[in-house]
Amino acid sequence: MNPISNEMIAELEALLGGNKVLKGDAIGADFAHDELPGGKFCAPALVCEAASTEDVAAVLTICNREAVPVTVRGAGTGLVGGSVPVCGGVVLSLAKMNAILELDSEKKTARVQPGVLLETLKAEAAAKGLYYPPDPGEKTATIGGNAATNAGGPSAVKYGVTRDYVRGATVVLPTGEVLQLGGATGKDNSGYRLLPLVLGSEGTLGVITELTLRLVEKPKTDVSLILPFLDGESCVNAALRILQEGMEPVALEYMDTDLVEFAGKATGNPVFPVEMDGERVGASLLLTLEGKDDELDSKMEAVAELAEELECLDILVVDTPTLKRDVWGAHDAFHTAVEGAAKSADELNMAVPAAELAGYVEYLKEIGEEKGIGVYAYGHVGDGGLHAYFCSDQSRDAFEPVMAELAELAYAKCRAVGGAVSSEHGIGYAKKAFLRASAGEAGYALMGRIKRAFDPKGILNPGKVV
Amino acid sequence: MNPISNEMIAELEALLGGNKVLKGDAIGADFAHDELPGGKFCAPALVCEAASTEDVAAVLTICNREAVPVTVRGAGTGLVGGSVPVCGGVVLSLAKMNAILELDSEKKTARVQPGVLLETLKAEAAAKGLYYPPDPGEKTATIGGNAATNAGGPSAVKYGVTRDYVRGATVVLPTGEVLQLGGATGKDNSGYRLLPLVLGSEGTLGVITELTLRLVEKPKTDVSLILPFLDGESCVNAALRILQEGMEPVALEYMDTDLVEFAGKATGNPVFPVEMDGERVGASLLLTLEGKDDELDSKMEAVAELAEELECLDILVVDTPTLKRDVWGAHDAFHTAVEGAAKSADELNMAVPAAELAGYVEYLKEIGEEKGIGVYAYGHVGDGGLHAYFCSDQSRDAFEPVMAELAELAYAKCRAVGGAVSSEHGIGYAKKAFLRASAGEAGYALMGRIKRAFDPKGILNPGKVV
Repeated sequence: MNPISNEMIAELEALLGGNKVLKGDAIGADFAHDELPGGKFCAPALVCEAASTEDVAAVLTICNREAVPVTVRGAGTGLVGGSVPVCGGVVLSLAKMNAILELDSEKKTARVQPGVLLETLKAEAAAKGLYYPPDPGEKTATIGGNAATNAGGPSAVKYGVTRDYVRGATVVLPTGEVLQLGGATGKDNSGYRLLPLVLGSEGTLGVITELTLRLVEKPKTDVSLILPFLDGESCVNAALRILQEGMEPVALEYMDTDLVEFAGKATGNPVFPVEMDGERVGASLLLTLEGKDDELDSKMEAVAELAEELECLDILVVDTPTLKRDVWGAHDAFHTAVEGAAKSADELNMAVPAAELAGYVEYLKEIGEEKGIGVYAYGHVGDGGLHAYFCSDQSRDAFEPVMAELAELAYAKCRAVGGAVSSEHGIGYAKKAFLRASAGEAGYALMGRIKRAFDPKGILNPGKVV
Repeated sequence: MNPISNEMIAELEALLGGNKVLKGDAIGADFAHDELPGGKFCAPALVCEAASTEDVAAVLTICNREAVPVTVRGAGTGLVGGSVPVCGGVVLSLAKMNAILELDSEKKTARVQPGVLLETLKAEAAAKGLYYPPDPGEKTATIGGNAATNAGGPSAVKYGVTRDYVRGATVVLPTGEVLQLGGATGKDNSGYRLLPLVLGSEGTLGVITELTLRLVEKPKTDVSLILPFLDGESCVNAALRILQEGMEPVALEYMDTDLVEFAGKATGNPVFPVEMDGERVGASLLLTLEGKDDELDSKMEAVAELAEELECLDILVVDTPTLKRDVWGAHDAFHTAVEGAAKSADELNMAVPAAELAGYVEYLKEIGEEKGIGVYAYGHVGDGGLHAYFCSDQSRDAFEPVMAELAELAYAKCRAVGGAVSSEHGIGYAKKAFLRASAGEAGYALMGRIKRAFDPKGILNPGKVV
């Protein structure tokens, strides 16, 4: 990789306009990191703000010619260092490409630039009576970042992940070539399927400069329920039965009581049950059902019957707007509450088969306890996605080597039970070693060859994924 | 590419057993072609019958070492020459890897070998009260072939295509390395998504030796309706309204009257309306609705209201088992009926945005008429998939150059209206030139580099796709 010459800076300034090329002190500290706890701070040499696909293509053409690294950035809300320029070079910010180009209520599609915030898209769709389902919790993420990481979230159990909603995309290759992938028709078996490969590739294969997204009808009425259980196994069993009985929950969250207690203390707002009739709750389910009024009633009755059969301790109904806001607000704030309350904290994210979830959480707690580290976990039990926070009163420096050991154990166990090394956050730079172990040498080497097929000089987000 | 040496044959015989390696006259004529009308006959030098993933890996290791072409074959029911060994070499038959390894009613998954026939899988799933939705019409295709071509069919409008049902696969790379792709958990963002890339790659990137498929609950009661219209535009408009009103049809087929008339005459079994009250029908919709009894009733009422509003000529209800068998049997037999009745015939398959469908069919008929060739078309209007048969009384030799010209025009127009060069049949060898034009030079070149990332020596199904 080459450093950036003054000639190259002048060329970029002439191309984009001087005020779109930031250097030196004009580059804010924000560009040097994302939201990975304890993550690296790596300032880029240059920040380029793109306004169009043509800008992106021109910047990439120049950087590819000069073999200068380019790291694409949206809102920087990632959790694995994916948008951090670990090899220096140029940060290409798409934050200002934030227009909703078209919102077609008849075709139920939205054509958007990548810098549109998830909350903006959701609000604009709602204003037209439509709904964009994927929601990883972080509402100030950009939709481009969601696509680059294939964001999921609780509603994926019914609605699927970001990849399921992208019908087409404009993608600029590292060489500056512009591809239109996917498109207007639902079925397409025309050669290799490049779109699902680029989605979730964390900015290492191409730069997404426009997305055509599928929207759905706004959901009918919904209600959330909290079901506490004495132990994790019963909680998971209940979740699996709810899925088997075809109740199609919109969310089905497994919450370990250690987590909800710790988060409740941290926020001073304990929403979820910790004890019932003098007995400690082991884990609770938080689920949302939706449907027309009578359909919803019959689903709730079915859950109530199941709950009795499955030794659920209680059913807490979350049906008013205030209650829903409080409960889902507390859920979406686990991340900030837990990490804010601990002196040092890391989060591990993986996918584990649902049947293994409770046992796996117990395992994490055990290995944490041996090292004096608290483990607080919740998961999307329908699709196996798990979030586990490791919290310590140690300094960051003392915590890190211990945490590295625990992460090794946690991902090894995850592989052993048939899980995947990342369910949602992606790989970034933080999880490359674990991906390699999980994909196997042949699979990891193949990913490397695919990377080179897209990016022969390796300029795009170097140091990430492979 | 190298010829096959006697040493290599001996090595393969020692490995697989002599009776699993066919050569010379022992190779039946079937191995030289698929069901592409007027397609090439290319006999392989050798046929190897694999019984396991290990067999496949061993055969590929040897062929890769010797740089000998390998073409994988299931039941040979493809329509673009995908399984025809156009470069000679070895045909690797997976037809005898036809075991259903596991059918788990609780997890709703089936673990199968690739040689299982689609009709067998459907029947075995049904015996356990489960349903495998993808159905391209050809029931004697193998499930491995369905996965390799990402087969679709009418029900894709509601249920999606094969790719949507593959949770995991064992894939052998051309180098003999074995990958486990996908797996037990729903969410997985662990590096590049290789599985959707291999599915639909028509045996050019890897060999699928095992599949884990998602099954669903058996559908509730269903009913089919035939709605005839005076012209194609009204027919498409009605289809779009049915989709917009959220009736979730399981199938939504656009049938041009020229097609149903020609096919009805050919079979002597005219099922679909050609004339109503002395006026010629332009096109009919064939749709299937499903749901619980009262749900189904209300959907049918809604269709009836719409039909009146949209100047539908009649509503024919297909509700008895006999009627359903007759109507869908006639639909699934369009292909054989039309091609059997013509002296020379070809089928073009593409995807066209639904709103363009009627106009596009008119265009095909016009260009056909200029050359004295009849065009008979139907399509899955929900996702744009179109099947158009070009029929002539000319000899094959006279027909082919004319047909080549028409195909050029048809795919050029398809690109112009935002369509895709293949909705279901794939590319094979027959449609490579059209893929190149449709993907563009940058996209096509990238596909070529991806091919080399998987298959450095280019031994796997050479001459196909890219």
